Amino acid sequence: MNPTMLLRLEIQALLDQYIDVIDNDRLEEWPSLFVEDCLYEIIPRENEDAGFPAPVIRCDNQRMLRDRVISLRNANIFSPQHYRHFLSGLAIGHADEHAVEFTCNYLVINSNQAGESLVYQTGRYLSRAVATNDGWRFASKRCVFETSRVQTLLALPI
Amino acid sequence: MNPTMLLRLEIQALLDQYIDVIDNDRLEEWPSLFVEDCLYEIIPRENEDAGFPAPVIRCDNQRMLRDRVISLRNANIFSPQHYRHFLSGLAIGHADEHAVEFTCNYLVINSNQAGESLVYQTGRYLSRAVATNDGWRFASKRCVFETSRVQTLLALPI
Amino acid sequence: MNPTMLLRLEIQALLDQYIDVIDNDRLEEWPSLFVEDCLYEIIPRENEDAGFPAPVIRCDNQRMLRDRVISLRNANIFSPQHYRHFLSGLAIGHADEHAVEFTCNYLVINSNQAGESLVYQTGRYLSRAVATNDGWRFASKRCVFETSRVQTLLALPI
Repeated sequence: MNPTMLLRLEIQALLDQYIDVIDNDRLEEWPSLFVEDCLYEIIPRENEDAGFPAPVIRCDNQRMLRDRVISLRNANIFSPQHYRHFLSGLAIGHADEHAVEFTCNYLVINSNQAGESLVYQTGRYLSRAVATNDGWRFASKRCVFETSRVQTLLALPI
Repeated sequence: MNPTMLLRLEIQALLDQYIDVIDNDRLEEWPSLFVEDCLYEIIPRENEDAGFPAPVIRCDNQRMLRDRVISLRNANIFSPQHYRHFLSGLAIGHADEHAVEFTCNYLVINSNQAGESLVYQTGRYLSRAVATNDGWRFASKRCVFETSRVQTLLALPI
Repeated sequence: MNPTMLLRLEIQALLDQYIDVIDNDRLEEWPSLFVEDCLYEIIPRENEDAGFPAPVIRCDNQRMLRDRVISLRNANIFSPQHYRHFLSGLAIGHADEHAVEFTCNYLVINSNQAGESLVYQTGRYLSRAVATNDGWRFASKRCVFETSRVQTLLALPI
């Protein structure tokens, strides 16, 4: 099979798994989609474009991601909400057998307790995955968002 | 080719065909994507989570799906509206050569007569497909929705 | 590999590339996804359904697409906005080794300067691609939209 197409399929499967664990309340699996020495950031587009990458959230290793999930489960108070992610426009950049860079659009629809479903955030994932014994895992995932009028606390991962 | 990836492609093609017939007004083809002895349900997430699966719509064979289409075409009065479905996050569960379980996110955007396009419903498909002479067909499709503030009558299939 | 599935992958890659160049401000690459003798139209659904295809935008060769980009970059005055496209429901129609017809749903979310992200337009792409030395390129792309309450000037390509 065309190796480019196979790579697209594999990366699509990784992205699908990523949103599956977030949207279906299996947050404990979320950090395991990253390697230990990883970067996860949520960044406003204005900052990214201006070259001032001041992220609103930054975790620079897998342990921080695990801490974040524990904190979400135990300490944080926020009203129940349900995310549904939608991804499109996968673009594969530099790729070799060890690592691959890729971007895609994301849309998060949030449903609140009142049963309203609204556009919560849209933006672009800039990702880098590396080959591991468990398949492709995120070495870096930067979520650059365009929606600055955030309706509610940024609680769940993007 | 990697059989897991091929299965993902085949299931994605089935899902794409499903939304194609609904969104492009070929409802008569919709029941034929199910086997005769099938289940189709639309369920509020609260009910599903609470273990009280009281669906708002339930059809437990293909004939009921066909009746529903005839009813939509002939009897029901509802103002013209156009759905556009968007799917993401395909997750394949238990699978063998005869049957496959899978889930994905769905988003339905509805455009009304005034030309407004709004988030109509979001949620998750829980599906089971079986191998037939015509390819994969739905044995079960359960649409678990999170949007309880429904803007208009639930008319077209989700 | 199953040739139908391979074709789906190739066409999906073309569509993903299409939205990537628009959404990430690489408009100069947009015309090169079309052949020289091409058609690009944006059409209200009412017109299309009524058989009066009076497009709001019509370009019938690649040079017109290039002119449009130059005009967007230099002449047109419009407030900065960011599109994110989401595609779903790919349906492959007539296909041979030289040409392929296909349709899919599209959703454009627009983020304005105030940081609001809203459903901007939804509809359906009706496309025809032809095989070139650079791979599949659009010979025809017709964007049939259902959202007539357009919030802002139609500036960027759909």
